[in-house]
Amino acid sequence: MLQLYFSPMACSLSSRIALMEAGLDASYHQVHLWTKKIVDDDGDFRGISPKGAVPVLVLDNGERLTESAAVLQYIADLNPKSGLAPRPGDVDRYRLQEWLSFIGSEIHKAFLFPTFWYKDDGSLAKPRARIAQTLSVPAEHLAEREFLVGNSFTVADAHLTWALLLLRPAGIDIARWPSLSAYLERMQTRPAVRSAIATEMALRKAMAA
Amino acid sequence: MLQLYFSPMACSLSSRIALMEAGLDASYHQVHLWTKKIVDDDGDFRGISPKGAVPVLVLDNGERLTESAAVLQYIADLNPKSGLAPRPGDVDRYRLQEWLSFIGSEIHKAFLFPTFWYKDDGSLAKPRARIAQTLSVPAEHLAEREFLVGNSFTVADAHLTWALLLLRPAGIDIARWPSLSAYLERMQTRPAVRSAIATEMALRKAMAA
Repeated sequence: MLQLYFSPMACSLSSRIALMEAGLDASYHQVHLWTKKIVDDDGDFRGISPKGAVPVLVLDNGERLTESAAVLQYIADLNPKSGLAPRPGDVDRYRLQEWLSFIGSEIHKAFLFPTFWYKDDGSLAKPRARIAQTLSVPAEHLAEREFLVGNSFTVADAHLTWALLLLRPAGIDIARWPSLSAYLERMQTRPAVRSAIATEMALRKAMAA
Repeated sequence: MLQLYFSPMACSLSSRIALMEAGLDASYHQVHLWTKKIVDDDGDFRGISPKGAVPVLVLDNGERLTESAAVLQYIADLNPKSGLAPRPGDVDRYRLQEWLSFIGSEIHKAFLFPTFWYKDDGSLAKPRARIAQTLSVPAEHLAEREFLVGNSFTVADAHLTWALLLLRPAGIDIARWPSLSAYLERMQTRPAVRSAIATEMALRKAMAA
């Protein structure tokens, strides 16, 4: 069975959403990202992945795949009928890759990552000054579209849903971009999305308690 | 004909390398990233792509594709015989996506981008403290491998070659990681790689003059 190493509400949430949308069984192993410990057994997470980052997807053959852009496409392709990614060769497949890269580099690594890991104002002044320009890209794209790619839910939507959820605790009120707040609300009407978020929010509250 | 919007020695270099390795003709349009002007005609680059970032690949049907991870896979798939990307469905295709994401987010967006765009010590202290851990990942991977994925040159190698070239002006001496400096030297023995770098270095010197 597939295994996903995750941390509650970290970017691995989009992999959980993808697994649930694809109807794939998996076992989930919680990781404490600050201590790099596996919660189940207090094991060393760097022994699973030297990067020390989630998501890590353990494939049926035991290989470990990292990086959301790769993990999400792998999950989507395990169940092509789910439509979670356009078929390889379709030009929309490159649009999917384009959005996964933009979300992973511009929203996650250039803004959310320094906000939650670096925290100090010296590190954050420039990322904060830049985030509105960044968010205008998906906001304009979604002004007249229901989904990021084509006419149905893909793993790019799973990833953007996660990123938008994290913007509020990062100090950004997405109500400034009505197309983004409407999109986030729409995505959360999907049972798999809602269930994945509820599971991880409960785990996160348990961590904080 | 394909068109590539690029800036000399910016991350669009890897797309130029990929086009040359694939033997594909393209017209190249230089962009000034600070002013967002197209050098040919002083046009507004944001009219080509609102992101204002390179690479932008204009496809034969006029559509514009952005983000190195997407552009590089698109170019590779235009000439499958070039072997620049494992075939879709091959597990190595996800390894390629994993490396493209890691280079684009961890090396480029988390380190090279703040180094060249933010510049001030307040912004750079934490990225600088983190880069050695980041570089240990490809250094260990390449200790006993010639290429990042499989046994031949792929677009992931084009992208890492670019990133390693930029580390020196970013203040990182990759001689600390012998497997990385040997790899960079090896990649530069490839005629397409050498020619792409020579072209862009000449343009960069002309800009500085």
